Amino acid sequence: MKVLSVVGYSKAGKTTLIERIVPILKNKGLKILVVKHALDFEMDREGKDSWRIFNAGADVAIASKDKLAFVSRIGDDLDEICSIFNFYDLIITEGFNRACKDRIVVLRDPEEIENFRCGRILAVVCDESVEGFRTFGFDRIEDLAEVILEWFYEGR
Amino acid sequence: MKVLSVVGYSKAGKTTLIERIVPILKNKGLKILVVKHALDFEMDREGKDSWRIFNAGADVAIASKDKLAFVSRIGDDLDEICSIFNFYDLIITEGFNRACKDRIVVLRDPEEIENFRCGRILAVVCDESVEGFRTFGFDRIEDLAEVILEWFYEGR
Repeated sequence: MKVLSVVGYSKAGKTTLIERIVPILKNKGLKILVVKHALDFEMDREGKDSWRIFNAGADVAIASKDKLAFVSRIGDDLDEICSIFNFYDLIITEGFNRACKDRIVVLRDPEEIENFRCGRILAVVCDESVEGFRTFGFDRIEDLAEVILEWFYEGR
Repeated sequence: MKVLSVVGYSKAGKTTLIERIVPILKNKGLKILVVKHALDFEMDREGKDSWRIFNAGADVAIASKDKLAFVSRIGDDLDEICSIFNFYDLIITEGFNRACKDRIVVLRDPEEIENFRCGRILAVVCDESVEGFRTFGFDRIEDLAEVILEWFYEGR
């Protein structure tokens, strides 16, 4: 299992990029988990069964024939998350800049790169070219996917 | 990790029972996951980021400082669910009768027991006594918790 971060400021286009990359990587047979960061979220509507059980102190999973949802007190420690979900081929994180994982950096402005220099930068996505890095425009998703696949299969 | 099922017909009181048992077991230091079965559920609101990424083909986790939510295509195979979430001390299933795990049976009527005879029946919860089984009324949650704890620590 490998971990790749997609980092950049809010509204830089991280979600759209991930949304467009995932089907390409999935077509290559990869089982992918995307981990997003959120300031907070509501686990469910008050009064619903799962909400009641969560509030009683248990973590909760809801299973249907083809889906499983899970709400827990695990929190946002990325290494812990990766160790639990290690049955995926690829975990893509949206954000988690400070975990310093290998990464794609999404920039609105080349100067922003300074805030995302940690871990190994596979490529930068930006409308302008960024010195010292392989830079792709937002229209070059297929080429970016190639870079990710090369990285994914490195050393195998 | 041990697995305990709470089985019984719809509206028999399974959720309420679990909601009342969980805090008692949690107070004993057990890390508990409750797995519920659902015919279907919506993973998120259409258009939201997590919905977009799920629909692009990836499974999705959303992490905040103190909670983690996860939506996947894993489905309702109980053994698979238990193998993923094996870091809990106790997995309580609501339903999953046919998995034949050790169980508490919640009955509105003693005759219903016939449909839940599989696995090991630790106790029956019913307003009337049920022949051949330790039976507890819905008011004897503490005693029922004792039975569960005995079972949990068996052979340790």
